[in-house]
Amino acid sequence: MKGLLEVPEAKAVRLVETGRLTVAQRLHYKDGRETADLDLLATEEPLEIHLGGIPIAVVMRTPGNDAELALGFVLGEGIVESANQIERISHCSEGEHGDNVISLIPRRGFEFSPRAVQRDSYLTSSCGVCGKRSIEQIFAACPAIIDRQIFARETLLCVPEKLRAKQEAFAHCGALHGVGLMDTRGALLCVREDIGRHNAVDKVVGWGAKNDISLGRCALVVSGRCSFEIVQKALMARISCVVSVGGVSSLAADLATKGGITLVGFAGDDRLSYYSVPEASA
Amino acid sequence: MKGLLEVPEAKAVRLVETGRLTVAQRLHYKDGRETADLDLLATEEPLEIHLGGIPIAVVMRTPGNDAELALGFVLGEGIVESANQIERISHCSEGEHGDNVISLIPRRGFEFSPRAVQRDSYLTSSCGVCGKRSIEQIFAACPAIIDRQIFARETLLCVPEKLRAKQEAFAHCGALHGVGLMDTRGALLCVREDIGRHNAVDKVVGWGAKNDISLGRCALVVSGRCSFEIVQKALMARISCVVSVGGVSSLAADLATKGGITLVGFAGDDRLSYYSVPEASA
Repeated sequence: MKGLLEVPEAKAVRLVETGRLTVAQRLHYKDGRETADLDLLATEEPLEIHLGGIPIAVVMRTPGNDAELALGFVLGEGIVESANQIERISHCSEGEHGDNVISLIPRRGFEFSPRAVQRDSYLTSSCGVCGKRSIEQIFAACPAIIDRQIFARETLLCVPEKLRAKQEAFAHCGALHGVGLMDTRGALLCVREDIGRHNAVDKVVGWGAKNDISLGRCALVVSGRCSFEIVQKALMARISCVVSVGGVSSLAADLATKGGITLVGFAGDDRLSYYSVPEASA
Repeated sequence: MKGLLEVPEAKAVRLVETGRLTVAQRLHYKDGRETADLDLLATEEPLEIHLGGIPIAVVMRTPGNDAELALGFVLGEGIVESANQIERISHCSEGEHGDNVISLIPRRGFEFSPRAVQRDSYLTSSCGVCGKRSIEQIFAACPAIIDRQIFARETLLCVPEKLRAKQEAFAHCGALHGVGLMDTRGALLCVREDIGRHNAVDKVVGWGAKNDISLGRCALVVSGRCSFEIVQKALMARISCVVSVGGVSSLAADLATKGGITLVGFAGDDRLSYYSVPEASA
Protein backbone atom coordinates (compact mmCIF):
# COMPACT_ATOMS: atom_id res chain seq x y z
CA MET A 1 0.00 0.00 0.00
CA LYS A 2 2.96 2.31 -0.24
CA GLY A 3 5.65 2.94 -2.71
CA LEU A 4 4.15 5.43 -5.09
CA LEU A 5 4.79 8.52 -3.01
CA GLU A 6 8.10 7.27 -1.68
CA VAL A 7 9.56 7.29 -5.13
CA PRO A 8 11.45 10.57 -5.48
CA GLU A 9 8.82 11.90 -7.86
CA ALA A 10 8.88 15.48 -6.65
CA LYS A 11 6.50 16.60 -9.38
CA ALA A 12 3.84 14.02 -8.53
CA VAL A 13 4.08 14.86 -4.81
CA ARG A 14 3.61 18.54 -5.61
CA LEU A 15 0.57 17.80 -7.78
CA VAL A 16 -0.98 15.81 -4.92
CA GLU A 17 -0.17 18.53 -2.38
CA THR A 18 -1.79 21.18 -4.54
CA GLY A 19 -4.90 19.05 -4.94
CA ARG A 20 -4.66 18.40 -8.66
CA LEU A 21 -4.06 14.67 -8.17
CA THR A 22 -5.55 12.40 -5.52
CA VAL A 23 -3.94 9.24 -4.13
CA ALA A 24 -6.32 6.29 -4.43
CA GLN A 25 -6.20 2.60 -3.61
CA ARG A 26 -6.29 0.32 -6.57
CA LEU A 27 -6.55 -3.40 -7.30
CA HIS A 28 -4.62 -3.91 -10.49
CA TYR A 29 -4.85 -6.94 -12.75
CA LYS A 30 -2.32 -7.22 -15.52
CA ASP A 31 -1.36 -10.23 -17.57
CA GLY A 32 -3.05 -12.52 -15.07
CA ARG A 33 -1.31 -11.04 -11.99
CA GLU A 34 -3.06 -9.15 -9.21
CA THR A 35 -1.52 -6.37 -7.13
CA ALA A 36 -2.95 -3.97 -4.56
CA ASP A 37 -1.20 -0.61 -4.83
CA LEU A 38 -1.74 3.13 -4.86
CA ASP A 39 -2.54 5.12 -7.98
CA LEU A 40 -2.93 8.81 -8.79
CA LEU A 41 -6.32 10.03 -9.99
CA ALA A 42 -7.31 13.36 -11.52
CA THR A 43 -8.99 15.27 -8.71
CA GLU A 44 -12.60 16.29 -9.36
CA GLU A 45 -14.38 18.64 -6.95
CA PRO A 46 -17.17 21.20 -7.29
CA LEU A 47 -16.37 24.90 -7.30
CA GLU A 48 -19.13 27.34 -6.42
CA ILE A 49 -18.61 30.71 -8.08
CA HIS A 50 -20.02 33.84 -6.38
CA LEU A 51 -20.28 37.23 -8.04
CA GLY A 52 -20.94 40.19 -5.76
CA GLY A 53 -21.94 37.77 -3.00
CA ILE A 54 -24.46 35.87 -5.15
CA PRO A 55 -23.84 32.22 -6.15
CA ILE A 56 -24.00 32.15 -9.96
CA ALA A 57 -22.71 28.68 -10.89
CA VAL A 58 -21.26 25.41 -9.67
CA VAL A 59 -18.76 23.70 -11.94
CA MET A 60 -17.11 20.31 -11.43
CA ARG A 61 -13.41 21.02 -11.80
CA THR A 62 -9.86 19.97 -10.94
CA PRO A 63 -8.60 22.30 -8.17
CA GLY A 64 -5.88 24.75 -9.11
CA ASN A 65 -5.98 28.19 -10.73
CA ASP A 66 -9.51 28.67 -9.42
CA ALA A 67 -9.28 32.47 -9.72
CA GLU A 68 -8.45 32.12 -13.43
CA LEU A 69 -11.27 29.62 -13.86
CA ALA A 70 -13.80 31.94 -12.22
CA LEU A 71 -12.62 34.95 -14.24
CA GLY A 72 -12.55 32.99 -17.51
CA PHE A 73 -16.01 31.61 -16.75
CA VAL A 74 -17.71 34.99 -16.22
CA LEU A 75 -15.93 36.42 -19.28
CA GLY A 76 -16.77 33.40 -21.45
CA GLU A 77 -20.42 33.43 -20.43
CA GLY A 78 -20.65 37.16 -21.13
CA ILE A 79 -21.59 37.90 -17.51
CA VAL A 80 -18.65 40.27 -17.18
CA GLU A 81 -17.26 42.23 -20.13
CA SER A 82 -13.67 42.74 -19.05
CA ALA A 83 -11.32 41.77 -16.25
CA ASN A 84 -11.30 45.45 -15.21
CA GLN A 85 -14.83 45.08 -13.91
CA ILE A 86 -13.55 42.74 -11.20
CA GLU A 87 -11.82 44.27 -8.18
CA ARG A 88 -10.73 41.12 -6.39
CA ILE A 89 -11.05 37.32 -6.56
CA SER A 90 -10.57 35.18 -3.46
CA HIS A 91 -11.51 31.84 -1.97
CA CYS A 92 -14.05 31.88 0.79
CA SER A 93 -11.98 31.76 3.95
CA GLU A 94 -14.69 30.35 6.14
CA GLY A 95 -15.98 26.84 6.63
CA GLU A 96 -14.56 23.41 6.02
CA HIS A 97 -15.01 23.67 2.28
CA GLY A 98 -13.87 27.25 1.71
CA ASP A 99 -11.48 26.08 -1.00
CA ASN A 100 -14.46 25.06 -3.10
CA VAL A 101 -16.12 28.48 -2.99
CA ILE A 102 -14.61 31.42 -4.87
CA SER A 103 -15.84 34.96 -4.79
CA LEU A 104 -15.53 37.65 -7.46
CA ILE A 105 -15.90 41.16 -6.06
CA PRO A 106 -17.01 43.62 -8.76
CA ARG A 107 -15.41 47.03 -9.01
CA ARG A 108 -17.56 49.86 -7.69
CA GLY A 109 -19.88 51.13 -10.39
CA PHE A 110 -20.14 47.84 -12.24
CA GLU A 111 -23.72 46.66 -12.37
CA PHE A 112 -24.97 43.20 -13.20
CA SER A 113 -28.35 41.58 -12.94
CA PRO A 114 -28.37 38.49 -10.71
CA ARG A 115 -31.56 37.31 -12.39
CA ALA A 116 -30.01 37.39 -15.85
CA VAL A 117 -26.96 35.55 -14.58
CA GLN A 118 -28.94 32.86 -12.87
CA ARG A 119 -31.06 32.23 -15.92
CA ASP A 120 -28.08 32.02 -18.21
CA SER A 121 -25.44 30.07 -16.39
CA TYR A 122 -24.73 26.41 -15.80
CA LEU A 123 -26.55 24.70 -12.99
CA THR A 124 -26.53 21.01 -12.31
CA SER A 125 -28.33 18.83 -9.85
CA SER A 126 -25.17 16.82 -9.37
CA CYS A 127 -23.36 19.63 -7.61
CA GLY A 128 -23.10 20.96 -4.12
CA VAL A 129 -20.56 23.20 -2.49
CA CYS A 130 -18.24 20.30 -1.84
CA GLY A 131 -17.89 16.73 -3.00
CA LYS A 132 -18.89 15.46 0.43
CA ARG A 133 -22.07 17.48 0.70
CA SER A 134 -22.87 16.64 -2.89
CA ILE A 135 -22.45 12.91 -2.31
CA GLU A 136 -24.58 13.10 0.84
CA GLN A 137 -27.32 14.81 -1.15
CA ILE A 138 -27.23 12.04 -3.72
CA PHE A 139 -27.62 9.31 -1.09
CA ALA A 140 -30.56 11.16 0.43
CA ALA A 141 -32.35 10.75 -2.91
CA CYS A 142 -30.86 7.42 -3.83
CA PRO A 143 -29.35 4.90 -1.36
CA ALA A 144 -26.22 2.80 -1.89
CA ILE A 145 -26.63 -0.43 -3.86
CA ILE A 146 -26.59 -3.61 -1.77
CA ASP A 147 -27.70 -6.25 -4.27
CA ARG A 148 -24.68 -6.21 -6.53
CA GLN A 149 -24.12 -8.08 -9.77
CA ILE A 150 -20.73 -9.77 -10.03
CA PHE A 151 -18.89 -9.75 -13.36
CA ALA A 152 -16.09 -12.20 -14.11
CA ARG A 153 -12.72 -10.66 -14.86
CA GLU A 154 -12.62 -12.49 -18.21
CA THR A 155 -15.89 -10.80 -19.19
CA LEU A 156 -14.61 -7.31 -18.35
CA LEU A 157 -11.34 -7.83 -20.22
CA CYS A 158 -13.38 -8.06 -23.45
CA VAL A 159 -15.08 -4.65 -22.94
CA PRO A 160 -12.80 -2.43 -25.09
CA GLU A 161 -12.84 -4.77 -28.10
CA LYS A 162 -16.58 -5.45 -27.99
CA LEU A 163 -17.50 -1.81 -27.42
CA ARG A 164 -15.28 -0.54 -30.21
CA ALA A 165 -16.82 -3.05 -32.63
CA LYS A 166 -20.25 -1.49 -32.00
CA GLN A 167 -19.19 2.18 -32.17
CA GLU A 168 -20.13 2.50 -35.80
CA ALA A 169 -20.27 6.28 -36.07
CA PHE A 170 -16.99 6.68 -34.14
CA ALA A 171 -15.30 4.57 -36.80
CA HIS A 172 -16.13 7.29 -39.35
CA CYS A 173 -15.52 10.48 -37.37
CA GLY A 174 -13.30 9.68 -34.37
CA ALA A 175 -15.13 12.11 -32.12
CA LEU A 176 -18.02 10.35 -30.40
CA HIS A 177 -18.34 8.69 -27.01
CA GLY A 178 -19.75 5.16 -26.87
CA VAL A 179 -21.62 3.72 -23.90
CA GLY A 180 -23.12 0.23 -23.60
CA LEU A 181 -25.04 -2.12 -21.34
CA MET A 182 -23.33 -5.50 -20.91
CA ASP A 183 -24.84 -8.61 -19.39
CA THR A 184 -22.96 -11.13 -17.22
CA ARG A 185 -22.17 -13.31 -20.24
CA GLY A 186 -20.43 -10.35 -21.87
CA ALA A 187 -23.13 -9.62 -24.44
CA LEU A 188 -23.68 -5.95 -25.28
CA LEU A 189 -27.44 -5.46 -25.09
CA CYS A 190 -27.39 -1.86 -26.30
CA VAL A 191 -24.71 0.62 -27.42
CA ARG A 192 -25.32 4.33 -27.99
CA GLU A 193 -22.98 7.04 -29.27
CA ASP A 194 -23.09 10.76 -28.56
CA ILE A 195 -20.90 13.86 -28.59
CA GLY A 196 -21.70 14.08 -24.84
CA ARG A 197 -20.72 11.11 -22.68
CA HIS A 198 -23.58 11.82 -20.23
CA ASN A 199 -26.06 11.80 -23.14
CA ALA A 200 -24.85 8.38 -24.26
CA VAL A 201 -25.43 7.12 -20.68
CA ASP A 202 -28.92 8.67 -20.66
CA LYS A 203 -29.67 6.94 -23.97
CA VAL A 204 -28.77 3.45 -22.76
CA VAL A 205 -30.57 3.97 -19.43
CA GLY A 206 -33.62 5.25 -21.33
CA TRP A 207 -33.43 2.24 -23.67
CA GLY A 208 -33.27 -0.10 -20.68
CA ALA A 209 -36.21 1.57 -18.93
CA LYS A 210 -38.31 1.51 -22.10
CA ASN A 211 -37.59 -2.18 -22.70
CA ASP A 212 -38.01 -3.32 -19.09
CA ILE A 213 -34.39 -4.44 -18.87
CA SER A 214 -33.21 -5.31 -15.37
CA LEU A 215 -30.45 -2.66 -15.25
CA GLY A 216 -29.22 -4.00 -11.91
CA ARG A 217 -28.00 -7.12 -13.72
CA CYS A 218 -25.98 -5.11 -16.26
CA ALA A 219 -22.61 -3.36 -16.33
CA LEU A 220 -22.35 0.15 -17.78
CA VAL A 221 -19.38 0.23 -20.17
CA VAL A 222 -17.91 3.58 -21.24
CA SER A 223 -15.47 4.27 -24.10
CA GLY A 224 -13.67 7.18 -22.49
CA ARG A 225 -12.94 8.64 -19.08
CA CYS A 226 -15.29 8.26 -16.16
CA SER A 227 -16.14 11.30 -14.08
CA PHE A 228 -18.57 11.86 -11.21
CA GLU A 229 -21.70 12.34 -13.28
CA ILE A 230 -21.35 8.95 -15.00
CA VAL A 231 -21.22 7.11 -11.66
CA GLN A 232 -24.09 9.26 -10.39
CA LYS A 233 -26.24 8.26 -13.35
CA ALA A 234 -25.32 4.58 -12.79
CA LEU A 235 -26.33 4.87 -9.13
CA MET A 236 -29.67 6.45 -10.02
CA ALA A 237 -30.28 3.61 -12.52
CA ARG A 238 -29.18 1.00 -9.88
CA ILE A 239 -26.33 -0.27 -12.08
CA SER A 240 -23.69 -1.80 -9.77
CA CYS A 241 -20.73 -2.11 -12.13
CA VAL A 242 -19.15 0.64 -14.27
CA VAL A 243 -16.25 -0.16 -16.60
CA SER A 244 -14.31 2.59 -18.34
CA VAL A 245 -11.75 2.21 -21.09
CA GLY A 246 -10.16 5.47 -19.89
CA GLY A 247 -9.20 6.82 -16.49
CA VAL A 248 -11.52 7.71 -13.64
CA SER A 249 -11.74 10.85 -11.50
CA SER A 250 -11.27 11.00 -7.74
CA LEU A 251 -14.92 11.86 -7.14
CA ALA A 252 -16.09 9.04 -9.43
CA ALA A 253 -14.04 6.58 -7.31
CA ASP A 254 -15.35 8.12 -4.10
CA LEU A 255 -19.00 7.99 -5.11
CA ALA A 256 -18.62 4.43 -6.45
CA THR A 257 -17.07 3.25 -3.17
CA LYS A 258 -19.83 4.82 -1.08
CA GLY A 259 -22.57 3.76 -3.50
CA GLY A 260 -21.63 0.07 -3.59
CA ILE A 261 -20.60 0.24 -7.23
CA THR A 262 -17.65 -1.68 -8.68
CA LEU A 263 -15.62 0.85 -10.69
CA VAL A 264 -13.01 -0.29 -13.20
CA GLY A 265 -10.77 2.08 -15.16
CA PHE A 266 -8.23 1.62 -17.94
CA ALA A 267 -9.91 -1.60 -19.05
CA GLY A 268 -7.76 -3.25 -21.70
CA ASP A 269 -7.45 -6.66 -23.24
CA ASP A 270 -4.85 -7.63 -20.64
CA ARG A 271 -5.58 -5.29 -17.72
CA LEU A 272 -8.23 -3.92 -15.34
CA SER A 273 -7.77 -1.26 -12.64
CA TYR A 274 -10.39 -1.54 -9.88
CA TYR A 275 -10.82 1.80 -8.07
CA SER A 276 -13.83 0.65 -6.09
CA VAL A 277 -14.30 -2.95 -5.03
CA PRO A 278 -17.40 -3.44 -2.90
CA GLU A 279 -17.31 -6.66 -0.91
CA ALA A 280 -17.18 -9.83 -2.99
CA SER A 281 -17.41 -8.09 -6.34
CA ALA A 282 -13.93 -8.56 -7.83
CA MET B 1 -15.15 17.86 -53.47
CA LYS B 2 -16.85 14.53 -54.00
CA GLY B 3 -15.91 10.96 -53.53
CA LEU B 4 -16.64 10.20 -49.93
CA LEU B 5 -20.33 9.53 -50.32
CA GLU B 6 -19.96 7.90 -53.72
CA VAL B 7 -17.93 5.12 -52.17
CA PRO B 8 -20.32 2.23 -51.53
CA GLU B 9 -20.16 2.85 -47.79
CA ALA B 10 -23.76 2.04 -47.01
CA LYS B 11 -23.23 2.36 -43.28
CA ALA B 12 -21.73 5.84 -43.50
CA VAL B 13 -24.52 7.01 -45.81
CA ARG B 14 -27.12 5.74 -43.35
CA LEU B 15 -25.37 7.50 -40.45
CA VAL B 16 -25.46 10.77 -42.42
CA GLU B 17 -29.10 10.27 -43.42
CA THR B 18 -30.12 9.69 -39.80
CA GLY B 19 -28.28 12.82 -38.70
CA ARG B 20 -25.60 11.18 -36.57
CA LEU B 21 -22.80 12.22 -38.92
CA THR B 22 -22.50 15.45 -40.92
CA VAL B 23 -20.63 15.88 -44.20
CA ALA B 24 -18.13 18.72 -43.97
CA GLN B 25 -15.56 20.31 -46.24
CA ARG B 26 -12.00 19.87 -45.16
CA LEU B 27 -8.55 21.07 -46.20
CA HIS B 28 -6.25 18.22 -45.34
CA TYR B 29 -2.47 18.46 -45.02
CA LYS B 30 -0.59 15.23 -44.66
CA ASP B 31 3.11 14.58 -45.14
CA GLY B 32 3.49 17.91 -46.91
CA ARG B 33 0.60 17.34 -49.37
CA GLU B 34 -2.59 19.39 -49.44
CA THR B 35 -6.00 18.07 -50.50
CA ALA B 36 -9.50 19.55 -50.38
CA ASP B 37 -12.02 16.82 -49.70
CA LEU B 38 -15.11 15.91 -47.70
CA ASP B 39 -15.00 14.45 -44.21
CA LEU B 40 -17.59 13.10 -41.78
CA LEU B 41 -18.05 14.91 -38.46
CA ALA B 42 -19.94 13.85 -35.35
CA THR B 43 -23.19 15.82 -35.46
CA GLU B 44 -23.81 18.12 -32.50
CA GLU B 45 -27.20 19.84 -32.09
CA PRO B 46 -29.21 21.05 -29.11
CA LEU B 47 -32.22 19.08 -27.90
CA GLU B 48 -34.84 20.90 -25.85
CA ILE B 49 -36.64 18.52 -23.48
CA HIS B 50 -40.22 19.35 -22.44
CA LEU B 51 -42.07 17.61 -19.61
CA GLY B 52 -45.82 18.13 -19.47
CA GLY B 53 -45.46 21.06 -21.87
CA ILE B 54 -42.77 22.83 -19.85
CA PRO B 55 -39.18 23.16 -21.16
CA ILE B 56 -36.96 21.61 -18.48
CA ALA B 57 -33.54 21.36 -20.13
CA VAL B 58 -31.48 21.86 -23.26
CA VAL B 59 -28.68 19.40 -23.91
CA MET B 60 -26.13 19.47 -26.72
CA ARG B 61 -26.35 16.01 -28.25
CA THR B 62 -25.82 13.87 -31.32
CA PRO B 63 -29.26 13.26 -32.90
CA GLY B 64 -30.63 9.72 -32.72
CA ASN B 65 -32.52 7.86 -29.97
CA ASP B 66 -33.82 11.16 -28.66
CA ALA B 67 -36.75 9.51 -26.86
CA GLU B 68 -34.32 7.29 -24.95
CA LEU B 69 -32.14 10.30 -24.17
CA ALA B 70 -35.08 12.30 -22.81
CA LEU B 71 -36.35 9.36 -20.74
CA GLY B 72 -32.87 8.53 -19.41
CA PHE B 73 -32.32 12.19 -18.58
CA VAL B 74 -35.46 12.63 -16.47
CA LEU B 75 -34.82 9.29 -14.73
CA GLY B 76 -31.14 10.07 -14.12
CA GLU B 77 -31.90 13.52 -12.73
CA GLY B 78 -34.56 12.06 -10.43
CA ILE B 79 -37.26 14.22 -12.06
CA VAL B 80 -39.29 11.12 -12.88
CA GLU B 81 -39.15 7.96 -10.77
CA SER B 82 -40.04 5.31 -13.32
CA ALA B 83 -40.74 4.96 -17.02
CA ASN B 84 -44.35 4.12 -16.09
CA GLN B 85 -44.94 7.74 -15.13
CA ILE B 86 -44.51 8.73 -18.80
CA GLU B 87 -47.42 8.12 -21.17
CA ARG B 88 -45.81 9.15 -24.44
CA ILE B 89 -42.61 10.67 -25.85
CA SER B 90 -42.60 12.43 -29.20
CA HIS B 91 -40.76 15.04 -31.22
CA CYS B 92 -42.45 18.35 -31.65
CA SER B 93 -44.09 18.08 -35.05
CA GLU B 94 -44.33 21.80 -35.66
CA GLY B 95 -41.78 24.31 -36.82
CA GLU B 96 -38.54 24.09 -38.78
CA HIS B 97 -36.62 22.69 -35.82
CA GLY B 98 -39.19 20.23 -34.47
CA ASP B 99 -36.57 17.47 -34.50
CA ASN B 100 -34.67 19.34 -31.82
CA VAL B 101 -37.60 19.55 -29.40
CA ILE B 102 -38.87 16.43 -27.64
CA SER B 103 -41.89 16.23 -25.42
CA LEU B 104 -42.55 13.82 -22.54
CA ILE B 105 -46.25 13.52 -21.70
CA PRO B 106 -46.77 12.34 -18.10
CA ARG B 107 -49.36 9.71 -17.32
CA ARG B 108 -52.54 11.05 -15.71
CA GLY B 109 -52.13 11.30 -11.95
CA PHE B 110 -48.37 11.85 -12.03
CA GLU B 111 -47.48 15.16 -10.42
CA PHE B 112 -44.22 17.03 -10.72
CA SER B 113 -43.19 20.47 -9.69
CA PRO B 114 -41.92 22.63 -12.58
CA ARG B 115 -40.12 24.87 -10.09
CA ALA B 116 -38.14 21.99 -8.60
CA VAL B 117 -37.24 20.76 -12.07
CA GLN B 118 -36.11 24.14 -13.29
CA ARG B 119 -33.94 24.70 -10.24
CA ASP B 120 -32.29 21.30 -10.55
CA SER B 121 -31.67 20.71 -14.21
CA TYR B 122 -29.00 21.72 -16.67
CA LEU B 123 -29.27 25.09 -18.30
CA THR B 124 -26.67 26.67 -20.47
CA SER B 125 -26.37 30.00 -22.14
CA SER B 126 -24.82 28.30 -25.16
CA CYS B 127 -28.03 26.59 -26.15
CA GLY B 128 -31.10 27.45 -28.13
CA VAL B 129 -33.73 25.30 -29.72
CA CYS B 130 -31.57 24.69 -32.75
CA GLY B 131 -27.97 25.17 -33.70
CA LYS B 132 -28.91 27.93 -36.10
CA ARG B 133 -30.87 29.98 -33.58
CA SER B 134 -28.21 29.33 -31.01
CA ILE B 135 -25.44 30.57 -33.30
CA GLU B 136 -27.46 33.66 -34.18
CA GLN B 137 -27.89 34.41 -30.48
CA ILE B 138 -24.15 34.16 -29.99
CA PHE B 139 -23.41 36.63 -32.77
CA ALA B 140 -25.92 39.07 -31.33
CA ALA B 141 -23.76 39.18 -28.17
CA CYS B 142 -20.44 38.71 -29.89
CA PRO B 143 -19.72 39.47 -33.57
CA ALA B 144 -17.54 37.42 -35.91
CA ILE B 145 -13.80 38.02 -35.77
CA ILE B 146 -12.36 40.05 -38.65
CA ASP B 147 -8.82 40.78 -37.49
CA ARG B 148 -7.43 37.27 -37.65
CA GLN B 149 -4.04 36.02 -36.56
CA ILE B 150 -2.36 33.72 -39.08
CA PHE B 151 -0.40 30.70 -37.82
CA ALA B 152 2.14 28.94 -40.01
CA ARG B 153 1.46 25.30 -40.73
CA GLU B 154 4.85 24.35 -39.30
CA THR B 155 3.90 25.99 -36.00
CA LEU B 156 0.61 24.09 -35.74
CA LEU B 157 2.25 20.75 -36.55
CA CYS B 158 4.17 21.05 -33.27
CA VAL B 159 1.03 21.46 -31.12
CA PRO B 160 0.53 17.84 -29.95
CA GLU B 161 4.15 17.33 -28.92
CA LYS B 162 4.48 20.70 -27.16
CA LEU B 163 1.13 20.44 -25.39
CA ARG B 164 1.77 16.90 -24.17
CA ALA B 165 5.14 17.95 -22.75
CA LYS B 166 3.35 20.52 -20.53
CA GLN B 167 0.49 18.28 -19.37
CA GLU B 168 2.26 17.31 -16.21
CA ALA B 169 -0.71 15.96 -14.24
CA PHE B 170 -2.00 14.00 -17.26
CA ALA B 171 1.32 12.16 -17.35
CA HIS B 172 0.51 10.73 -13.91
CA CYS B 173 -3.20 9.99 -14.19
CA GLY B 174 -4.17 9.80 -17.87
CA ALA B 175 -7.51 11.46 -17.27
CA LEU B 176 -7.17 15.23 -17.62
CA HIS B 177 -7.76 17.60 -20.50
CA GLY B 178 -5.01 20.06 -21.37
CA VAL B 179 -5.58 23.45 -22.99
CA GLY B 180 -2.96 26.04 -23.89
CA LEU B 181 -2.38 29.47 -25.42
CA MET B 182 0.21 29.44 -28.19
CA ASP B 183 1.84 32.47 -29.78
CA THR B 184 2.75 32.79 -33.46
CA ARG B 185 6.29 31.55 -32.81
CA GLY B 186 4.86 28.34 -31.36
CA ALA B 187 5.61 29.15 -27.71
CA LEU B 188 3.04 27.92 -25.19
CA LEU B 189 2.39 30.93 -22.94
CA CYS B 190 0.11 29.07 -20.54
CA VAL B 191 -1.16 25.49 -20.19
CA ARG B 192 -3.91 24.42 -17.80
CA GLU B 193 -5.32 20.98 -17.04
CA ASP B 194 -8.78 20.06 -15.80
CA ILE B 195 -11.22 17.16 -15.63
CA GLY B 196 -13.56 19.43 -17.64
CA ARG B 197 -12.34 20.65 -21.03
CA HIS B 198 -14.41 23.84 -20.77
CA ASN B 199 -12.85 24.57 -17.36
CA ALA B 200 -9.35 24.28 -18.81
CA VAL B 201 -10.38 26.81 -21.50
CA ASP B 202 -11.81 29.15 -18.84
CA LYS B 203 -8.54 28.88 -16.89
CA VAL B 204 -6.32 29.91 -19.82
CA VAL B 205 -8.70 32.70 -20.84
CA GLY B 206 -8.80 33.90 -17.23
CA TRP B 207 -4.99 33.76 -17.08
CA GLY B 208 -4.76 35.80 -20.27
CA ALA B 209 -7.25 38.41 -19.04
CA LYS B 210 -5.48 38.73 -15.69
CA ASN B 211 -2.09 39.16 -17.34
CA ASP B 212 -3.22 41.53 -20.09
CA ILE B 213 -2.28 39.06 -22.81
CA SER B 214 -3.51 39.95 -26.28
CA LEU B 215 -5.64 36.83 -26.75
CA GLY B 216 -6.39 37.78 -30.35
CA ARG B 217 -2.74 37.08 -31.19
CA CYS B 218 -2.86 33.56 -29.70
CA ALA B 219 -4.13 30.16 -30.80
CA LEU B 220 -6.17 28.05 -28.38
CA VAL B 221 -4.74 24.52 -28.40
CA VAL B 222 -6.81 21.65 -27.00
CA SER B 223 -5.66 18.12 -26.12
CA GLY B 224 -8.90 16.32 -26.94
CA ARG B 225 -11.99 16.75 -29.06
CA CYS B 226 -13.46 20.11 -29.90
CA SER B 227 -17.17 20.67 -29.47
CA PHE B 228 -19.36 23.75 -29.82
CA GLU B 229 -18.70 25.24 -26.38
CA ILE B 230 -14.94 25.37 -26.92
CA VAL B 231 -15.33 27.42 -30.13
CA GLN B 232 -17.93 29.58 -28.41
CA LYS B 233 -15.51 30.37 -25.59
CA ALA B 234 -12.78 31.16 -28.13
CA LEU B 235 -15.14 33.54 -29.97
CA MET B 236 -16.06 35.32 -26.72
CA ALA B 237 -12.34 35.70 -25.94
CA ARG B 238 -11.65 36.89 -29.54
CA ILE B 239 -9.23 34.03 -30.23
CA SER B 240 -9.19 33.44 -33.99
CA CYS B 241 -7.46 30.05 -34.20
CA VAL B 242 -8.43 26.83 -32.40
CA VAL B 243 -6.33 23.69 -32.80
CA SER B 244 -7.51 20.34 -31.49
CA VAL B 245 -5.53 17.13 -31.22
CA GLY B 246 -8.81 15.21 -31.51
CA GLY B 247 -11.82 15.48 -33.80
CA VAL B 248 -14.28 18.36 -34.03
CA SER B 249 -18.08 18.38 -33.96
CA SER B 250 -20.33 19.63 -36.74
CA LEU B 251 -21.52 22.60 -34.70
CA ALA B 252 -17.95 23.52 -33.73
CA ALA B 253 -17.05 23.65 -37.44
CA ASP B 254 -20.21 25.63 -38.24
CA LEU B 255 -19.66 28.23 -35.50
CA ALA B 256 -15.96 28.56 -36.38
CA THR B 257 -16.81 29.17 -40.05
CA LYS B 258 -19.39 31.84 -39.22
CA GLY B 259 -17.25 33.35 -36.47
CA GLY B 260 -14.14 33.86 -38.60
CA ILE B 261 -12.17 31.32 -36.59
CA THR B 262 -9.66 28.93 -38.14
CA LEU B 263 -10.49 25.47 -36.78
CA VAL B 264 -8.02 22.61 -37.06
CA GLY B 265 -8.75 19.07 -35.91
CA PHE B 266 -6.69 15.87 -35.67
CA ALA B 267 -3.48 17.90 -35.39
CA GLY B 268 -0.55 15.52 -35.53
CA ASP B 269 3.16 15.79 -36.17
CA ASP B 270 2.56 15.16 -39.88
CA ARG B 271 -1.05 16.24 -40.43
CA LEU B 272 -3.61 19.01 -39.95
CA SER B 273 -7.32 18.90 -40.88
CA TYR B 274 -8.77 22.40 -41.40
CA TYR B 275 -12.55 22.37 -40.90
CA SER B 276 -12.87 26.14 -41.05
CA VAL B 277 -10.54 28.29 -43.12
CA PRO B 278 -11.46 31.97 -43.04
CA GLU B 279 -9.96 33.93 -45.91
CA ALA B 280 -6.16 34.02 -45.98
CA SER B 281 -5.68 32.07 -42.79
CA ALA B 282 -4.29 28.73 -43.97
